[in-house]
Amino acid sequence: MTAVEIKIRLFVEADLAPGQAVVLSRDQAHYLFGVMRLGLGARIGLFNGRDGEFPGRVVEAGKRGGVLECEAQLRPLQMPPDLWVLFAPIKKARTDFIVEKATEMGVARIIPVQTDFTNSERIRQDRLQAHAVEAAEQCGGTFVPEVTPLAKLPRLLDDWPEGRKLMFCDEALSGEASAAPLAGLERGAPWAIVVGPEGGFSQAERDRLRALPFAHAVPLGPRILRADTAVVAAMTVWQQALGDWA
Amino acid sequence: MTAVEIKIRLFVEADLAPGQAVVLSRDQAHYLFGVMRLGLGARIGLFNGRDGEFPGRVVEAGKRGGVLECEAQLRPLQMPPDLWVLFAPIKKARTDFIVEKATEMGVARIIPVQTDFTNSERIRQDRLQAHAVEAAEQCGGTFVPEVTPLAKLPRLLDDWPEGRKLMFCDEALSGEASAAPLAGLERGAPWAIVVGPEGGFSQAERDRLRALPFAHAVPLGPRILRADTAVVAAMTVWQQALGDWA
Repeated sequence: MTAVEIKIRLFVEADLAPGQAVVLSRDQAHYLFGVMRLGLGARIGLFNGRDGEFPGRVVEAGKRGGVLECEAQLRPLQMPPDLWVLFAPIKKARTDFIVEKATEMGVARIIPVQTDFTNSERIRQDRLQAHAVEAAEQCGGTFVPEVTPLAKLPRLLDDWPEGRKLMFCDEALSGEASAAPLAGLERGAPWAIVVGPEGGFSQAERDRLRALPFAHAVPLGPRILRADTAVVAAMTVWQQALGDWA
Repeated sequence: MTAVEIKIRLFVEADLAPGQAVVLSRDQAHYLFGVMRLGLGARIGLFNGRDGEFPGRVVEAGKRGGVLECEAQLRPLQMPPDLWVLFAPIKKARTDFIVEKATEMGVARIIPVQTDFTNSERIRQDRLQAHAVEAAEQCGGTFVPEVTPLAKLPRLLDDWPEGRKLMFCDEALSGEASAAPLAGLERGAPWAIVVGPEGGFSQAERDRLRALPFAHAVPLGPRILRADTAVVAAMTVWQQALGDWA
């Protein structure tokens, strides 16, 4: 059994261990047996964000439910770095994309934030969390980042956790040198990346961010990037300099 | 007149110079005067991919046309590095995204390629080119990359231009060190980046790419990235190491 044979991957809540039976929800059964037409004996990949990945063999299949039995562990849990991504929700499709991309790139927590130029007053946290699950399913991940409720940026900064550094993507630096601000910093520390909304940060926000002792301003090249592009580019810069791309 | 005052940017075919009159097409007039409700005297940003950006003042506005008059140049043409991006077209929305993201990140030419695992037999080149124009309009670009017709990867490699290097995103390297393969290479040389389709490259393609004297295999971290994510991540790695992010 190799990873290549397992095309379908499913996130489940249940504990996973060799021989463990996993009871499917109605939606999961519909997907596996109705949509994907799997039969008894078929194998998929199972992960729950805690125990790694296990092949699950179909031992019961019905219209409203089913049971998979775990075989030997295929891969251990692969934790992302202790990285948070803070972003200002934008148009729906791009917000979904940001959650998907942050999950693919490796993030522990995704925090939608309200900034001075954020239009969004509310988000669908359950939908964004489902996007994170789907991204992990599609991209071979065994961990699913937590998507938190919408938070106000000033309040987050007021209560900023001791020891966590903040990478702040500063459009005003556009054109200056890039990875230099992170050079020589220690790997393995807790970090966060904050990416502003389409209109950028307000001058007051920029002044505050720049004055924070734990914040590091990082430019992302000479062009203006959309917020979703900036999330992937910023995470690439960070993963290369301080994350697990080393 | 600062860049901030100009919210609307329009790509036009006409030459641009101070005092130059720019005649609008019917669609452009509809957009500016019907949708955006601009009146006489309003200013937008104009660029044509050759002359930089000029403020254009509305001097005639009608339902079926209009005329803008260029003022003094706002910004010179900002050329991207001499970088091509080769990608295998995937689902429509993600293909559109790749063109948008490559344009934002700074690319001279975008080449859709057919690979062994590419499903797409055809693309809408005009639609993709329009996406590149729109990305440049939205992101403050003054250059629009050319989107070429769909090309077969083996034929492209057979006729590879002398002196152009190729960065090849190799999933098989996943987990190995990242920016190292580009370290110490000379900036300013012509390059291309090739990103495979969702299923990756075939073994035959990988063998061929790895054997090419002008190709450099670069890993993109320990996770599997979707093709659209990989394009942004790969361009970030390249722009930092060899492009204009320095």
